[in-house]
Amino acid sequence: MKYYSIEEMKSWERFYRANFINSLSGFKPISLVSTINSDGVPNLALFSNIIHLGSDPALIGIVNRPREASPHTLGNIESNGLFTINHVHNSFVEAAHQTSAKYAFDVNEYDEIGLTAEYKQNFSVPYVKESLVQYGLELVEIIPIKANNTFLIIGKLKQVFIDETIVSDDGFINIQQSGSLASLGMDAYYETIPLKRFKYAKVGIPAQELSF
Amino acid sequence: MKYYSIEEMKSWERFYRANFINSLSGFKPISLVSTINSDGVPNLALFSNIIHLGSDPALIGIVNRPREASPHTLGNIESNGLFTINHVHNSFVEAAHQTSAKYAFDVNEYDEIGLTAEYKQNFSVPYVKESLVQYGLELVEIIPIKANNTFLIIGKLKQVFIDETIVSDDGFINIQQSGSLASLGMDAYYETIPLKRFKYAKVGIPAQELSF
Repeated sequence: MKYYSIEEMKSWERFYRANFINSLSGFKPISLVSTINSDGVPNLALFSNIIHLGSDPALIGIVNRPREASPHTLGNIESNGLFTINHVHNSFVEAAHQTSAKYAFDVNEYDEIGLTAEYKQNFSVPYVKESLVQYGLELVEIIPIKANNTFLIIGKLKQVFIDETIVSDDGFINIQQSGSLASLGMDAYYETIPLKRFKYAKVGIPAQELSF
Repeated sequence: MKYYSIEEMKSWERFYRANFINSLSGFKPISLVSTINSDGVPNLALFSNIIHLGSDPALIGIVNRPREASPHTLGNIESNGLFTINHVHNSFVEAAHQTSAKYAFDVNEYDEIGLTAEYKQNFSVPYVKESLVQYGLELVEIIPIKANNTFLIIGKLKQVFIDETIVSDDGFINIQQSGSLASLGMDAYYETIPLKRFKYAKVGIPAQELSF
């Protein structure tokens, strides 16, 4: 294996370095985060920094880039406290990627990009109709990360929309059956193949397999 | 699609609920985090909550569960400020899963589980020799997340070890070529298939593909 020091990585051209370091931490989720602005115009933004924080209470976080680089999602959540997260599938991955272009604040990105805003269950922020795994959140807290001016936005889960046939007997959701993608780095999308599930690990008992 | 309200999800049996909510946020990275305790005994812990925070400076975060549930990694990083992160592959996924059992503070989990501690480049914390993507970090900040008593541990990248043949011309790391896995929920592991890469998105220009 080759050894790369941080000094060497710092010397690299900016995009080479960003590609390398972005890929290093591994596969990520990939979803469209939807919000509405103060005029009710819906916004879409592509996020791969989505973090399961806990299931009781059910908390999910997203990391927003510095405000200058990416102001809309953060500002909209600050103003009305609601957002939806919608898995990305192969059928609309081009459109999803395109939401990362810098559209103006008053542009309806659903219309611009050709996705469908779906309003339901009295949630004022729309879901992406083309997505087969959708969930809605209410803001709990925004934690500024001083080290690089990013923000951890924490939401509590309010509602979920999925096809119940992809839910296993033990509650596990087979999102590979809905064609949800994984991502890597800044621009790569992957399909997935189930390998193994294991029972809860205990000292002295070898790993035991579980079905999907 | 079926609608699930948070009230319904709260009524579910604990493990069913945990499986469901853990899977909802999508595919995750999966790596072994290694630390050493105050006596120099190395520890291993399986993490899927690993977050790319930025590439300039190069910052990566991990979310540690509440201290009562998972004290060793957090305590070790507090005491000496260093940790390594090591991708998980099919060849040792059973062993990796087994590290999530609750071993005592003074147990050398490498020995217990049958993985090899590799000390190199003057880093006092070992790497997992069986892993083909390894990187070492130095603590920047630990942010307590009050909403559920978890902790965001932020490290700055110090060194990386990978086979240079998996690095593309633009710095992207083809971790599928090293057999790095993705994870889902609490206990599921996936292989991945590259689907598409796209150029940086710009307003008015349709998504353009890029090679892996």
